[in-house]
Amino acid sequence: MSKTIEILGADGEALLNHKCETISKDLLTLPGADFVDRSFGNSNRSPQVLRSLQALYGTGRLANTGYVSILPVDQGIEHSGGASFAPNPIYFDPENIVKLAIEGGCNGVASTFGVLASCSRKYAHKIPFIVKLNHNEMLTYPEKFDQIMFGSVDEAWNLGATAVGATIYFGSENSNRQIIEVAAAFERAHELGMATILWCYTRNSAFKKDGVDYHVATDLTAQANHLGVTIQADIIKQKLPERNGGYTAVGFGKTHPKVYSELSTDNPIDLTRYQVANCYMGKNGLINSGGASTGDGQSDLNQAVTTAVVNKRAGGHGLISGRKAFQKDMKDGVALLNAIQDVYLDESITIA
Amino acid sequence: MSKTIEILGADGEALLNHKCETISKDLLTLPGADFVDRSFGNSNRSPQVLRSLQALYGTGRLANTGYVSILPVDQGIEHSGGASFAPNPIYFDPENIVKLAIEGGCNGVASTFGVLASCSRKYAHKIPFIVKLNHNEMLTYPEKFDQIMFGSVDEAWNLGATAVGATIYFGSENSNRQIIEVAAAFERAHELGMATILWCYTRNSAFKKDGVDYHVATDLTAQANHLGVTIQADIIKQKLPERNGGYTAVGFGKTHPKVYSELSTDNPIDLTRYQVANCYMGKNGLINSGGASTGDGQSDLNQAVTTAVVNKRAGGHGLISGRKAFQKDMKDGVALLNAIQDVYLDESITIA
Amino acid sequence: MSKTIEILGADGEALLNHKCETISKDLLTLPGADFVDRSFGNSNRSPQVLRSLQALYGTGRLANTGYVSILPVDQGIEHSGGASFAPNPIYFDPENIVKLAIEGGCNGVASTFGVLASCSRKYAHKIPFIVKLNHNEMLTYPEKFDQIMFGSVDEAWNLGATAVGATIYFGSENSNRQIIEVAAAFERAHELGMATILWCYTRNSAFKKDGVDYHVATDLTAQANHLGVTIQADIIKQKLPERNGGYTAVGFGKTHPKVYSELSTDNPIDLTRYQVANCYMGKNGLINSGGASTGDGQSDLNQAVTTAVVNKRAGGHGLISGRKAFQKDMKDGVALLNAIQDVYLDESITIA
Amino acid sequence: MSKTIEILGADGEALLNHKCETISKDLLTLPGADFVDRSFGNSNRSPQVLRSLQALYGTGRLANTGYVSILPVDQGIEHSGGASFAPNPIYFDPENIVKLAIEGGCNGVASTFGVLASCSRKYAHKIPFIVKLNHNEMLTYPEKFDQIMFGSVDEAWNLGATAVGATIYFGSENSNRQIIEVAAAFERAHELGMATILWCYTRNSAFKKDGVDYHVATDLTAQANHLGVTIQADIIKQKLPERNGGYTAVGFGKTHPKVYSELSTDNPIDLTRYQVANCYMGKNGLINSGGASTGDGQSDLNQAVTTAVVNKRAGGHGLISGRKAFQKDMKDGVALLNAIQDVYLDESITIA
Amino acid sequence: MSKTIEILGADGEALLNHKCETISKDLLTLPGADFVDRSFGNSNRSPQVLRSLQALYGTGRLANTGYVSILPVDQGIEHSGGASFAPNPIYFDPENIVKLAIEGGCNGVASTFGVLASCSRKYAHKIPFIVKLNHNEMLTYPEKFDQIMFGSVDEAWNLGATAVGATIYFGSENSNRQIIEVAAAFERAHELGMATILWCYTRNSAFKKDGVDYHVATDLTAQANHLGVTIQADIIKQKLPERNGGYTAVGFGKTHPKVYSELSTDNPIDLTRYQVANCYMGKNGLINSGGASTGDGQSDLNQAVTTAVVNKRAGGHGLISGRKAFQKDMKDGVALLNAIQDVYLDESITIA
Repeated sequence: MSKTIEILGADGEALLNHKCETISKDLLTLPGADFVDRSFGNSNRSPQVLRSLQALYGTGRLANTGYVSILPVDQGIEHSGGASFAPNPIYFDPENIVKLAIEGGCNGVASTFGVLASCSRKYAHKIPFIVKLNHNEMLTYPEKFDQIMFGSVDEAWNLGATAVGATIYFGSENSNRQIIEVAAAFERAHELGMATILWCYTRNSAFKKDGVDYHVATDLTAQANHLGVTIQADIIKQKLPERNGGYTAVGFGKTHPKVYSELSTDNPIDLTRYQVANCYMGKNGLINSGGASTGDGQSDLNQAVTTAVVNKRAGGHGLISGRKAFQKDMKDGVALLNAIQDVYLDESITIA
Repeated sequence: MSKTIEILGADGEALLNHKCETISKDLLTLPGADFVDRSFGNSNRSPQVLRSLQALYGTGRLANTGYVSILPVDQGIEHSGGASFAPNPIYFDPENIVKLAIEGGCNGVASTFGVLASCSRKYAHKIPFIVKLNHNEMLTYPEKFDQIMFGSVDEAWNLGATAVGATIYFGSENSNRQIIEVAAAFERAHELGMATILWCYTRNSAFKKDGVDYHVATDLTAQANHLGVTIQADIIKQKLPERNGGYTAVGFGKTHPKVYSELSTDNPIDLTRYQVANCYMGKNGLINSGGASTGDGQSDLNQAVTTAVVNKRAGGHGLISGRKAFQKDMKDGVALLNAIQDVYLDESITIA
Repeated sequence: MSKTIEILGADGEALLNHKCETISKDLLTLPGADFVDRSFGNSNRSPQVLRSLQALYGTGRLANTGYVSILPVDQGIEHSGGASFAPNPIYFDPENIVKLAIEGGCNGVASTFGVLASCSRKYAHKIPFIVKLNHNEMLTYPEKFDQIMFGSVDEAWNLGATAVGATIYFGSENSNRQIIEVAAAFERAHELGMATILWCYTRNSAFKKDGVDYHVATDLTAQANHLGVTIQADIIKQKLPERNGGYTAVGFGKTHPKVYSELSTDNPIDLTRYQVANCYMGKNGLINSGGASTGDGQSDLNQAVTTAVVNKRAGGHGLISGRKAFQKDMKDGVALLNAIQDVYLDESITIA
Repeated sequence: MSKTIEILGADGEALLNHKCETISKDLLTLPGADFVDRSFGNSNRSPQVLRSLQALYGTGRLANTGYVSILPVDQGIEHSGGASFAPNPIYFDPENIVKLAIEGGCNGVASTFGVLASCSRKYAHKIPFIVKLNHNEMLTYPEKFDQIMFGSVDEAWNLGATAVGATIYFGSENSNRQIIEVAAAFERAHELGMATILWCYTRNSAFKKDGVDYHVATDLTAQANHLGVTIQADIIKQKLPERNGGYTAVGFGKTHPKVYSELSTDNPIDLTRYQVANCYMGKNGLINSGGASTGDGQSDLNQAVTTAVVNKRAGGHGLISGRKAFQKDMKDGVALLNAIQDVYLDESITIA
Repeated sequence: MSKTIEILGADGEALLNHKCETISKDLLTLPGADFVDRSFGNSNRSPQVLRSLQALYGTGRLANTGYVSILPVDQGIEHSGGASFAPNPIYFDPENIVKLAIEGGCNGVASTFGVLASCSRKYAHKIPFIVKLNHNEMLTYPEKFDQIMFGSVDEAWNLGATAVGATIYFGSENSNRQIIEVAAAFERAHELGMATILWCYTRNSAFKKDGVDYHVATDLTAQANHLGVTIQADIIKQKLPERNGGYTAVGFGKTHPKVYSELSTDNPIDLTRYQVANCYMGKNGLINSGGASTGDGQSDLNQAVTTAVVNKRAGGHGLISGRKAFQKDMKDGVALLNAIQDVYLDESITIA
């Protein structure tokens, strides 16, 4: 554990020793080698879906720990290829994306139809492919925020995918169309035996209020998670929460005083625990995102490891970290991914 | 009967002795052990649908009485998981929802795709699953009132459902799209052999007039029922009526003076009898909803039992009560469900 | 004939002796026992459609006369159940609707999916079922005028229907969507072997001009008929015309001076003859509607019989009369239906 | 030739002797007995489509000349039945429409679903049926200009059609939806072995400029033809051009100075030659429409024969003339159709 | 090489000697005889798609060099037939288009459904057909910019196509609908074994800023390419870039300073190299368009050959040049196409 402690720095001890007294871990379905059995064995998921889930949980350095480390590289669509790959142009070549995921010991690689299709006969049997189905491309002017389908679920299966991913912008004007589309896509993915991962984002300009950004409020993001598992996402990708009080600040929807007094505190682990609770008390894995690259290797490392510790201690299932890993030299990217994984491999870092 | 009387308190006797002189019970198809035979035997429902209906009417403490007690837990979608489960967070775990329904002696459990899917191989053969197909989620800002499909009817059947449920907001701007969608869903559900339950709500801000809320007027809710059975809902879920005169107060649509002078009175049983009449004179069961939890156990119990007595005496088929049951300790929830059921088991409480 | 004359009263003789000198009956395909052969034998209708048409023309008191008397009860959707059934609440029970049609000697009963489905195994083989596919429900606020589908054509066939019915509001803003939908529905109905009946209404607030209502102008309604037979309605339901000059008064579309000078007069039989001409010169049967109930039995009877005489003498095929029949005691309803039928059975009442 | 010359009157000689020096006839695929072979033999059209084309080109007085004379009667939908048939009401009866086409020696009869369906078992094997798929009905108020589908292509095939027809209003706001719909319909028609005819109209109020109507400008109508053959219309129906300069007068789109200086002149034959060039240099037949009836037989005859001469000499394939033929006595209509046909039978009238 | 040098004139030497120091050619998948193997062998493309790609790369004067020269003639739809073919009217006849491609030694001919269908049984086995699926026709007034489908992918396959082409107007208001439509079309094309080519245009009036046109900025066009390969275009058609700085000038989207400082320079080869990089580092071929005809043969030739040199040296796969080739005499068109091809055949012209 010494290396993780070293990376965490001054805040490390407090994080590692925090005990969550809001929603007890005893109420959770906890990660573990037999997680797929315990959580999905009695579900409606077919044996083929169980195989796909097990393939995800059973690949890479975290194989069979109940944790996952996923490399996502689809930012070229939304942020542009230039914005994404200028720091290290080798990733304009899709094969290098898959290589980074393999070298980095990831459980799977999430990318676009085009990227994964370009090398599927070489790699789809070596590392689980997660095809990201929809995107918000930003070449349209004026900018709009809408996720549209870039291909079909069958196309993902045909190219060898183990899982499909999709984004919903909960809170936004097109969210209902997206819910309907993604629910249908996930139903089809399950029929074809693939697992499903939902990028469960909140998005609405009204969610910034008086300079405070409630897109990362735990009450709003957790409700997004709740909707996500309702449409049968197997795994939920969510941003790490930074605060609470979104419903009350924005002044809409329905919530309960105990959400603020009893079910969470300001501690990041407790905030994240509430996200886990809204994934059916951990029956569906919560993976948090790694966030943008700061451009500074040490800073990226510190943020990523901190996020991993919070996620793990809250009861989460791992991290999905892209820009911090591919916007630098490949060996540094591998090192960062491994540092994240080390958190999950370290048995002394417990669930709070 | 003593316990029910005790719970009803001062108003009990009047309720229990009221005789309905508007639409005679002789005109109704009455509940009973052979209700499925008498009401659906000559209908277009297939033998598989008859089996599903019989499964619903034949499970739990009310098995084979012609009455049903259903636990609905889908409020997490509309009101948020936090608002719904903060009072008792164990229900963030979907298995506990099903356990409450079983422990509570219910005929079936109505919930979301996600909840029922998560434990379907363990429970779908132990208690009828009613998959709620559509929801109005309220994470979108600004709030909108629209029911959208969260999955397909086939998906419901695949996870072991006995019935599907859906909501239509009659009166609202999207109601016609919802009628078309739900009619198609119910046709498919019947093809697959499932029963159909319609949450038959009225919803329009114009239905509040001069401070009076006509969403619970019997003339409007009864017409919603009439539209519901037209699209072949087998069972109608409706709020208990509190008044009459919606059409005339709002000043729209068509009605008839006798609806107010002869077909109902101000008595809650008579108001509800008019709802039953609009379910093809009882050929389709009317179940009333239990309403929100007051947070006070005794008050909840009194309201629920009163509602049950009114529903039963009007010719209804039972209650569907969620928040009063799961927003408290599980044993108290079970007790409340049982108290409702006791009304229907009590042969001395007759149809008025 | 004495009874019909008696009912007609003072105006009877003029009606019965009028000779139509606009469009000669020699140009018409006339009703008769072999009408299905003569009119549809060389058409594209399949043998199964011919069987369905023959079943309609071959049932009830008018069996095999070439005339039809149909009981329509679907007003509960548009006008509300209360407005429709308050005069005689037994019709809240759908079985009584079918009983009235049978007791009344009708050729068929037209009603909703829900009504006919509820008793289809008992009655669909005893009297032809006509399932009304679409409706304009008026529980939506503010009121809108649009016909939407309440179920599928296959569903109608599955419940035992002999024919399907549908409404188009010609002239209205949604008419083109309705034309497309109904044309597709009728094509499917014909594939399944059912007959098709179009409620061929005109509807546009602009069709009232200077206090005169041109929704019942023969030039406009006849054009609606013309469009109806174009999409292969086998039978056209139309309101009895009351005047001419709709196109010219409203000032739109195209017409011809001879429509007013040669092809019609003010005589109701001549006005109706022009409607018949627009049903491919009688190749498709024209049935006129009975209109609202006045609440007064004698007045209802007089109106209905007068309408029947006009329809028959113009070359029409019968009446479809609902409210005048079911908004009173069942025996009075039967009497009214029989009085209408007597007009068509009376061989001394000829085609003008 | 004497009779045609007689009908043409004073202008005849100029027309008959004009030599087209814009686009040489040597560049055209010319009409002829083997036209289907020469033009479609190497195309993607299937043997069944070739059979249908040959049936069209091989029926009636013009059989196997490479020319067609078609009777179109669908004006009842757009202009109303009254406006169309008041001059001769026998055509309210659809059988008379088909009889006129047969008596008139036509290659085919183009009409609505309803008309052709009503007598298909009697006539579809005697004269090619061309089912007009879409119409702009004008009973809707306020008037709109949109072509909507009145039935399906399969339905046309089932009733015995040899070809389908459709209209696109090029230039109008709904033209793109119409292009998509008609392209799909024509693909399906070809799959089923039917030929395809496009009513290739321009329609936009902006196409009238300073009192001059450019709906009949050859540059615009020819571009409509070009789009029509792109979506695989086998035959193009177009109005006879009356002028050039549409693009430049309206000031939109792209054109080329040579369109006005070299590819056409003001001569009607040259204007029409440019339309033929835009039908893939005559690989797809151009038929011009006959226009409205003047009500005067001699005048109608003169116009029709003049149009036929222009069309033939430009390299066109024939005329499609409706109102001039059916808005008079049947024998006069037959005479008019025959006079048109005589132009094409007259070998002394050559391609200019 | 002397002839190419001669054509290039004064600027030739600089172009031919430029060394690209932005994105090294070592990072690219380079053209070559075995390009299909190297680039698509490990992709998801089926053996039938590999055959189609090989047919494209293996036909004409450039057969098996890894380069393609394609003749596109679909401008008649957007610019009008007159604007396109007035300079040489023989191309109104579609067969001449295909002849020019064959005579000109092209790898394939890209045109409309109508053009290629008209002679498919004669030529589809002689030269690869590329059916352009969608177009922006400009006969609609007022002008709109939208690509709509003129037929189906199956129809293209049925007529013998080797590949399909489509256009997306990235940046425009309808781009997302186009992305969805074209992605689906390309999936279907791949299923049927055809190759896919995307006309990858940017289009938005805001992309002109202060008189500078950023529709040909490399940062915007390259991002269009990146989106194009994401939806599995096998080959990208793009305009030759003329500048950089589109994102920053227009002020939208996301980009990176290194796009301007390190990944390109003002040199046309470097600008184009950035386009190639955004085609997955050359895994998908980039073909640049030849632009409009100047009407002057020498000038056309100079532009075309210059473009070819830039494209080749940047790492591109060839040119797609239409108007410069068909808006002149056929022998001059052939000469121009051959001059372009000579650039790619000339081994002394290297990748920079």
